[in-house]
Amino acid sequence: MNPSFEKLTQRMNQANSLLCVGLDSTIEKIPARFQNEPTPQFAFNRWVIEQTHLYVCAYKPNLAFYEARGDQGWRELKQTMDYLRDQYPDIFTIADAKRADIGSTNAGYVTAIFDWLGFDAVTLNPYLGKEALLPFLERTDKTNILLCRTSNPGAGEFQDLRIGEKTLWQVVAERVCTEWNTASNCMLVVGATYPAELKQVRAMVGEMTLLVPGIGTQGGDVELVLKVGLNENKQGLILNASRSIIFAANPSIEAQNLRDEINQYR
Amino acid sequence: MNPSFEKLTQRMNQANSLLCVGLDSTIEKIPARFQNEPTPQFAFNRWVIEQTHLYVCAYKPNLAFYEARGDQGWRELKQTMDYLRDQYPDIFTIADAKRADIGSTNAGYVTAIFDWLGFDAVTLNPYLGKEALLPFLERTDKTNILLCRTSNPGAGEFQDLRIGEKTLWQVVAERVCTEWNTASNCMLVVGATYPAELKQVRAMVGEMTLLVPGIGTQGGDVELVLKVGLNENKQGLILNASRSIIFAANPSIEAQNLRDEINQYR
Repeated sequence: MNPSFEKLTQRMNQANSLLCVGLDSTIEKIPARFQNEPTPQFAFNRWVIEQTHLYVCAYKPNLAFYEARGDQGWRELKQTMDYLRDQYPDIFTIADAKRADIGSTNAGYVTAIFDWLGFDAVTLNPYLGKEALLPFLERTDKTNILLCRTSNPGAGEFQDLRIGEKTLWQVVAERVCTEWNTASNCMLVVGATYPAELKQVRAMVGEMTLLVPGIGTQGGDVELVLKVGLNENKQGLILNASRSIIFAANPSIEAQNLRDEINQYR
Repeated sequence: MNPSFEKLTQRMNQANSLLCVGLDSTIEKIPARFQNEPTPQFAFNRWVIEQTHLYVCAYKPNLAFYEARGDQGWRELKQTMDYLRDQYPDIFTIADAKRADIGSTNAGYVTAIFDWLGFDAVTLNPYLGKEALLPFLERTDKTNILLCRTSNPGAGEFQDLRIGEKTLWQVVAERVCTEWNTASNCMLVVGATYPAELKQVRAMVGEMTLLVPGIGTQGGDVELVLKVGLNENKQGLILNASRSIIFAANPSIEAQNLRDEINQYR
């Protein structure tokens, strides 16, 4: 079995959790007491991880919030990953990077994300096609999570375009499921804000695990997402919340409550 | 006028050049004499820029090759940008980053690429739609270059899907041209390896400038690209070559020759 997927499955079972916490640690939004630290994003992340680790199956930093601080942000993201690997090596890690370039160029991103930073998984944009993404797809030890139906309000501009009887996001789901996933190292992103589409994706992809952002601040309905998104084993979902947990006064309680709310509907 | 577009136009005229050199400075491929420098990618880039600056309208580093070295690569990319701004402030700069995230998250990439690194332009992936990319599109001082028809062999997997009478890449071209470009700060990427598609894009978008990668190592035909891609003013193309110039024994001669070959067909 793909070792990264095995890691995720074990962690989901051990922590009894489908909850992923998004470490979207915007420098301007982190509490004042961290702002004066020499490495404020890492100090904040470490605190959030200490508060929430019991309740999560995964952490998902979005690279945009670190790149906003240039090389310093990259360094603090690396510190965060080193800390996780050292202290909580059983927690699955997702680089929310939404990368995609032409073939040989992707090798640079593969090295950055899977090797230098050491993530278990990465989010990828499908627009350039499978051939372009082979440097990612050939990593049978890691997980590639392809954008299918994204959580933003304007996601449908291209994703809902009709290709014969199907929408573009349906074609993406189908291709990834039947042609890209030969090494069992692919997942899909489907926003919690689109439960009807989530239901259809689940019907198309069998047991495949789906990364579902958009619960919490973005307003996705937890009960409905679980009802339509779980696979036959009552698993197959990574449910991400970011700001509603990490910027709460008490991230520990928020994470526990959301983990428990999710489990209530499994 | 958009100051970044004005800068590009002036530089194209002054240098009599449509040539963009891709600073795809893979650490493993740069000459041995740079490998022992404390900042090898920056040292190599500075040398390439000194060799080629007379013949280019633009430089286009691809971020993947810098991220492969983590925070050190980001620092050397920043040094490269600082050097360009200091020594050659009239040369247009493109971050080949192919970014796209949901709205609020893109603000981090905007800060990183336009402000911290100081690029004039960025390449973006259209899959999430205009609404998601507003933090980029609202920067009326900068240029947003949307992937339309990419240069890779498997580009057609999704880009060629038919939406009624059109392909997906045609819908992207049309939307960007008619609905996204209200601030005249958009361009499109069309690979030199697809001249038939380039011809159609030119027919659809009027005078809009197109970034055309894929001449040089990827094999695009310069004469044909010029014939089908130029706008009515004999402009409107940024033609990128990367490896065939920067890894040549004499980048200066390669750049001059390619600039002159391009001009021969204008």
